[in-house]
Amino acid sequence: MPLLPPIDSLSLPQQVAQMVVVRASGYLFDRQIQYPAWEPTADTLKEWVIEWGVGGVILLGGSAAELALRSQQLQDWATIPLLVAADVEEGVGQRFAGATWFPPPMALGAIAQTDRDHACQLATAMGRAIAQEAYAVGLNWVLAPVVDVNNNPQNPVINVRAFGDQPEQVATLATSFLQGMQAHPILACAKHFPGHGDTATDSHLSLPLIPHDRDRLHQLEWHPFRAMVAAGVDAVMSAHLLIPSLDRLYPATLSPRILEGELRQQMGFDGLIVTDALVMGAIANGYGANEAPVLAVEAGADILLMPLDPVGAIQAVVEAVETGRIERDRIHASVERIWRAKHNVVTTSLSGDSSHAWETLPMPRIDAKSLTTQLAQPDALELGASILQASMQVHAVPSFELPEGTQNLLIVDDALSCDFLTHQSPAIALPRKWGCTLQICDATSSIEAIAQSTNIRPPTLLQLFIRGNPFRGSAGLNQMAQRWVEQLLRDNRLQAVLIYGSPYLLQEFQLKLPPQIPCVFTYGQTDVAQALALQAIYRECQMSPVE
Amino acid sequence: MPLLPPIDSLSLPQQVAQMVVVRASGYLFDRQIQYPAWEPTADTLKEWVIEWGVGGVILLGGSAAELALRSQQLQDWATIPLLVAADVEEGVGQRFAGATWFPPPMALGAIAQTDRDHACQLATAMGRAIAQEAYAVGLNWVLAPVVDVNNNPQNPVINVRAFGDQPEQVATLATSFLQGMQAHPILACAKHFPGHGDTATDSHLSLPLIPHDRDRLHQLEWHPFRAMVAAGVDAVMSAHLLIPSLDRLYPATLSPRILEGELRQQMGFDGLIVTDALVMGAIANGYGANEAPVLAVEAGADILLMPLDPVGAIQAVVEAVETGRIERDRIHASVERIWRAKHNVVTTSLSGDSSHAWETLPMPRIDAKSLTTQLAQPDALELGASILQASMQVHAVPSFELPEGTQNLLIVDDALSCDFLTHQSPAIALPRKWGCTLQICDATSSIEAIAQSTNIRPPTLLQLFIRGNPFRGSAGLNQMAQRWVEQLLRDNRLQAVLIYGSPYLLQEFQLKLPPQIPCVFTYGQTDVAQALALQAIYRECQMSPVE
Repeated sequence: MPLLPPIDSLSLPQQVAQMVVVRASGYLFDRQIQYPAWEPTADTLKEWVIEWGVGGVILLGGSAAELALRSQQLQDWATIPLLVAADVEEGVGQRFAGATWFPPPMALGAIAQTDRDHACQLATAMGRAIAQEAYAVGLNWVLAPVVDVNNNPQNPVINVRAFGDQPEQVATLATSFLQGMQAHPILACAKHFPGHGDTATDSHLSLPLIPHDRDRLHQLEWHPFRAMVAAGVDAVMSAHLLIPSLDRLYPATLSPRILEGELRQQMGFDGLIVTDALVMGAIANGYGANEAPVLAVEAGADILLMPLDPVGAIQAVVEAVETGRIERDRIHASVERIWRAKHNVVTTSLSGDSSHAWETLPMPRIDAKSLTTQLAQPDALELGASILQASMQVHAVPSFELPEGTQNLLIVDDALSCDFLTHQSPAIALPRKWGCTLQICDATSSIEAIAQSTNIRPPTLLQLFIRGNPFRGSAGLNQMAQRWVEQLLRDNRLQAVLIYGSPYLLQEFQLKLPPQIPCVFTYGQTDVAQALALQAIYRECQMSPVE
Repeated sequence: MPLLPPIDSLSLPQQVAQMVVVRASGYLFDRQIQYPAWEPTADTLKEWVIEWGVGGVILLGGSAAELALRSQQLQDWATIPLLVAADVEEGVGQRFAGATWFPPPMALGAIAQTDRDHACQLATAMGRAIAQEAYAVGLNWVLAPVVDVNNNPQNPVINVRAFGDQPEQVATLATSFLQGMQAHPILACAKHFPGHGDTATDSHLSLPLIPHDRDRLHQLEWHPFRAMVAAGVDAVMSAHLLIPSLDRLYPATLSPRILEGELRQQMGFDGLIVTDALVMGAIANGYGANEAPVLAVEAGADILLMPLDPVGAIQAVVEAVETGRIERDRIHASVERIWRAKHNVVTTSLSGDSSHAWETLPMPRIDAKSLTTQLAQPDALELGASILQASMQVHAVPSFELPEGTQNLLIVDDALSCDFLTHQSPAIALPRKWGCTLQICDATSSIEAIAQSTNIRPPTLLQLFIRGNPFRGSAGLNQMAQRWVEQLLRDNRLQAVLIYGSPYLLQEFQLKLPPQIPCVFTYGQTDVAQALALQAIYRECQMSPVE
C-alpha cells in the first residue's frame, strides 16, 4: 500500500492517534464556530491533525462550497490521509447548504408499506446520490445508514431517521441504500449497535436503558445489523445504551461483551467499530473524559469518535498500553482495519494510479464548476421530490379556500436556525401571495401570551415544522402545537394544518381534527416539501413543485 | 493594453454590452437564489456573460468562500475581464459571511466629533482593509464610499451609511476612506450624486424630490463629491432623485444637465459615471425598462447598473445609436473609460506581467488557506472593535443587576434573516448565562397580542436591532419598539435598553427613559458590538469583548 506508511513505522502514540476522529466546524473561520464547547479553533485543530496525527475529522456546519474547501484544507494539513466524516443521513444538503437534502429514511419506509420494490429502488438511488455528492465535497465517510428499528414512537433521537418500525423492512431498505452508496468510494456506517430504536430517552442527555433480553434483540434489533454485515458495510457505530441482559455494568459503547462479543465474534463483523460521540452526556458524564476512550478500546472499538479531550484520550490509551492494560496487538489490529478502510477510499479517489504517494499528488481542484456540476443535479432533486410525493399523507377537502384575512402561523423549533425557511420558501411565499399575514412562533415564544389575546383572532393556516430534535427532544414543541390546535379549534378559526416532519404528531392530531379541516403530512421540510404539501390542499395555486 | 482587445474590434452590441453590469446571486446554486425576480439563473447569467458579453456583475448573497468561487466562475466564463462589484460599504462581511463586517460609516462620524484626526486614521484603515478583503474574494469594485450628507434623520435609505450630517466632515472622512482603498487594486465608487441625504423617501420604492436650489447643493451636498473627484475616485454613482432646480423633467440618473452638465463638465469628473440600480422603483416604474437605459446613456452614464432586462437594454441602446439618437462616439467614450478602469484593476492583479493576455493566465487559486490568511485577520477585527468602542454611547447605572426571572426580549427586523444572531451571539448567550429567558419579536409578531397578555409580565432586558432598512423603511419597527418601551415603563419592568443600529432611535428614547434605566447605543450589530454593549452596562460579566 504505497499511500499509507507501514503501521510499524508509526510510534505507539501515532497509531493510537489514528484511532481518534475529532469534531470540527465545517466553516473556515473561527468566528463562525457554532458550538465553541465542542468545536476547536483552527489552531487547535491544526495541532491535532499535524502534531498528533489524528485519524480523521467529523464536520458540521457551513455550506457545501465551504465544506469542499475545508476538506481540502484538512487533507493538506495531514501527513496520512484523513477520514473526513459527516452525519449526512439525508444527504449532504441536510447539513451543508447547496447540496441535495433528501427526505428522512422513514419516508422510504412509508412507501415500502405499499410498494417495497419501488421503495428499495428509491433507497438505492438515494444512497448512490448521497455518496456521489459526499465525494464531490471531499467527504470519504458518510455516517449512514441508520438501521435502528424505531419501535418506540416517543423516541426523541431516532424517529424519522429510521427506515421504519419493522426489522425486516429496515434491513431491506438499509441494504438497498448501502448498495447504492457502494457505487462510489465512500465509507458507510450502520448505526447504532445494538439498536437505538426502542427508547424514549435521548442518549445525548442521559443513558437510556434497554430492558430486552438477548433473544428479542437477536430477533428484532439485530436483524438489520446482520444484513449490513452480510452486505459488507465498512463500519458499525455503537450506541450509548445500557442493556443489562447483555452487560450489567457497561453501556454498549464501552462493553466488551457487546462490541467484541456480540458484534465482532458472534456476528462476525471485521470492519471498523466506531463509538458514537464520546462527548455525549451518557458517556462523558459517567466515565470520565479520558477513561471512556480506554474502556471503548478495551470493549473493541477501532475508532474513538469525538472524545471530549482528543489529546488526553490519546495519552490515556497509550498509557493503558504501556501499563499492560491494553495489548499492543489490539491497537495494531485497529490501525490495520483503519488502513484497510482508508486504502479503499483513498486509492479509488486517486483513480488507481498507485505509483504516486498521496502526498505528491495534487489535491483535486475545488472550483465552482466541479461543485455546480456534481451537487444538486436535476436527477437528485427529482428523486427527492418523488420520495416526498409518494410518502406524503393528504386529507384534502374539495374546493377548499382560505378566507380573507387568514394568518399564516408557522411553528418552528428555532426561528434563528431554520435554514429551510426564507421569505422565498413556499410555506411563506405562497400564503403571502394568497393574502395571508405571517406569524412565526418558536420554542421561545410565549404561547400563553399569544393565545390569551382577545381582540386578534384571525382565521389561521397552521404550519408545523416539527421533528424529533436530539438534545432538546420535541416534547415542548409538540405540546405548544397541541395547544395551538386546541385553541384554534375552540375559536373555530383553524383553516388547515400542514405538518412537516414528525408522523407521530400527525397521529395525535388525526384524532382531534374534524373532517372538514384539510390536513397534510410530509416527511420533508425543504422548499420542495412545502410546495408539494401546499399544492395538495390548495390546488388552484399555480406553481410547479420545484419553483 | 494587451489585456483588453482594441475597442474598435468589438461590434456595437459588444461595446454597449460592456456598459451593462448585471445583478446575480453570490450563491453557486440556482435553488439558493434569494430574490428570483432580480437574480438570474446560472443559465441566464451565462448567456448574458458569454453570449452578450456584459461588462460586469454585481453580487449579493452567499458566504465569502462562495463569493470567491463565484467570482472565479464568472471570470472563467468571460472573454473580457469582468467588473465584479458588491455593495460592501461596511466590509465584505457585511454581505458575505466569514469576512470582516465593520461598523457603518456614521460610527466614524461620531468619533470625528471629538477627534477628527483619529477618525480619519480609522477611516483610512477601514478603507484599506475592505479593499484588501474584496481583492481576496475576487471583487474588483467596491461600491463605496457613500458620500451623502445625512441631513435628514428620517432618511430611510442613507442613514448610518453616511459619514455624518456635516459636508466637511463627510468629505474628510470619505477622502481618508478612499485613500485607504487606493492601497489595493480595487475600484471605488462615490455615491449617490447629486446627494441622497436630505430625503425621507426611499428611492427603492418611489422617486424622492429634493427641493433645494443649485447654490445650496453646491455648498452642501457637492462638497464631498468635489473632494472625491479631487482624490481621484474611479466612479461616481447617480441617485434616483428629482431635483427641479436642476432638471424639472428627469431624475438625476437620467438627466444630461445633472450627469453630463454638473458632474462631468462643471465638476470635471472624467471617471466612470454609473447609474444606481435601474430596477429600482423610482426609475423602473416611471420610464420603461428599456427606455431608462437609453435615457441614462444620453444623460452621460457609462455604466448601466442592474437594468431590469439586460438584453433589452443592450438592444435599446444599440437601436438608439443606429437611429442616430445617440452618437457612436458617445458609446466609444464610455467603453474607453471602462477599459481604463478595467486596465487598472486587471493589470495590477496580474502582478504586472503584461506579456500575457488575460485569457492565458491561470486564475488565482481559491483555497482555504488563501481565504483564511486574508479575510477577518486579527488587525481587521481589532480595528472594527476600536471603532465600535469609540463610537458607543453608554448611560450606565452603578451596580446595576438584572433581577431573577428577567426576560431577554430581542426586537429584530426579520427573525428569519438576521445572520448576526445565533444562539452563540453575546446578545443571546450572555443573558442566557445570567438566567434570562429568551423572547424574539420581529416585524411579523403581533405586538398587541403580546402586550395585552396579563399574567406574564417579567422584568425585561430590551435589545433592539434596528437600523434603516431600504425597501421596508424602519418606521413600523421603530413604532413597535416605542410601544414596547412605553408598555414596559408603564408596567415598571424595563431593566435596561440596548440599541444596535439607529442613533435616531436612541434620540427618541432618551427623552422617555428615566435616569435609573441603563441604556447603551452601538452602531454595530455584530457579535463584537453585542459583547461590548452588554459589558458596558453589566461589568461584572466575565468575558473578553471578542470571545
